[in-house]
Amino acid sequence: MAAGRLFLSAKNAAALDVELMSSGGFSLDQLMELAGLSCAQAVYKAYPPESKNKVLVIAGPGNNGGDGLVAARHLKLFGYEPTVYYPKRPNKDIYNRLFIQLQNLKVPFTEDFESALTSTDQVLDAIFGFSFHPPIRPPFDSVISVLANCSKPIVSVDLPSSWDVDAGPPAEGQLGHGFVPDVLISLTAPKPAAKFFVGEGKRHFLGGRFISKQVAEKWGFELPQYPGVDQIVELPVEQE
Amino acid sequence: MAAGRLFLSAKNAAALDVELMSSGGFSLDQLMELAGLSCAQAVYKAYPPESKNKVLVIAGPGNNGGDGLVAARHLKLFGYEPTVYYPKRPNKDIYNRLFIQLQNLKVPFTEDFESALTSTDQVLDAIFGFSFHPPIRPPFDSVISVLANCSKPIVSVDLPSSWDVDAGPPAEGQLGHGFVPDVLISLTAPKPAAKFFVGEGKRHFLGGRFISKQVAEKWGFELPQYPGVDQIVELPVEQE
Repeated sequence: MAAGRLFLSAKNAAALDVELMSSGGFSLDQLMELAGLSCAQAVYKAYPPESKNKVLVIAGPGNNGGDGLVAARHLKLFGYEPTVYYPKRPNKDIYNRLFIQLQNLKVPFTEDFESALTSTDQVLDAIFGFSFHPPIRPPFDSVISVLANCSKPIVSVDLPSSWDVDAGPPAEGQLGHGFVPDVLISLTAPKPAAKFFVGEGKRHFLGGRFISKQVAEKWGFELPQYPGVDQIVELPVEQE
Repeated sequence: MAAGRLFLSAKNAAALDVELMSSGGFSLDQLMELAGLSCAQAVYKAYPPESKNKVLVIAGPGNNGGDGLVAARHLKLFGYEPTVYYPKRPNKDIYNRLFIQLQNLKVPFTEDFESALTSTDQVLDAIFGFSFHPPIRPPFDSVISVLANCSKPIVSVDLPSSWDVDAGPPAEGQLGHGFVPDVLISLTAPKPAAKFFVGEGKRHFLGGRFISKQVAEKWGFELPQYPGVDQIVELPVEQE
């Protein structure tokens, strides 16, 4: 396979998002709904609900956080017990509505990240996505430090939070160094940083089943075959 | 089971829709995306794609038609070959965008309903939903007449088109008399007319997995357990 063929750079991911919502005819509500649903399905595939698994959803201030809020709703409906840590809440209509939807489903929001982490079975990292740029502001700096040293299973949405979209994981001494989730759900297409997501037992899913072959060809990434009605498809992970 | 407990009247279905989009925090885009996805999943469950099954999607002028447009997109992505007959297209932003999404996926639109019907494997009836009131205007009057005498498998979205939401199928001599689809997908909750959807081999699904237990209780319908990550759950059908 030609190096780079499979990956969507930060610049192209942003441009494709703009295209999907202009000439593509999609609304943010639609794309976020399908993205969040695929994240919930990836959690289900990797950690099937045994007895109301607790999932701590960490939602960032942007669209990655929005995907996490949608995923939390579907996880609740799938039989999980999600708790949401959502410390920065921009006053934007779509996030406000996603918040209300979760409140109506009695999904708890917590302000005590560390306690919630202690009692959870899994973590959904929906802090930062493809538009991430350092520095990492509080309280997410300490959240990332804790996650980097945490033994709970972590599922990252689109990118491991703190990783550079194109360059990959932070260097030694930088915040987030050593943070490698157990599961990664790339949305629309894997970003270049996904090349560094390797290791035994790691699982990588692709979600966001709304891309046509023509769009994938135009933007230079491959579109794998999704099985059945699934909104996710599993991708191979190098063993290291 | 108490008679009426399971069904959502036309009046209550309309009121619940208003509630979902006000205090419920949902947008029409979200609800239509999940409803249309569940319709596509019902088609998949009832008629798994063997070799690019052709599905003729008949989309009406309102939100039932919008659900059909969303379903057509997912069916295309699931490996079907949908063709859409959409003769009345109100100039409303959401329908315009759903139309563009299908065009970008190269889903054909036809103006020749009868030819498309002849060559299709299945039909998705997304003409009228719970806000239907007679009379049936052209060209849907002749479409309904043809469907009532058609041997192709038909999947109806929310209600068999021409049926009264509360009273059920049209009486003898009335347009639509004798029209009984093979599969019915009730959205959110079955409507009273679904009581008349009976017979050997008929399949009934419920779709629209966004209702909380509290909402179902408030509006007096039962919420069955959806399996796994499915957006549909199959309901029993009386053999007649």
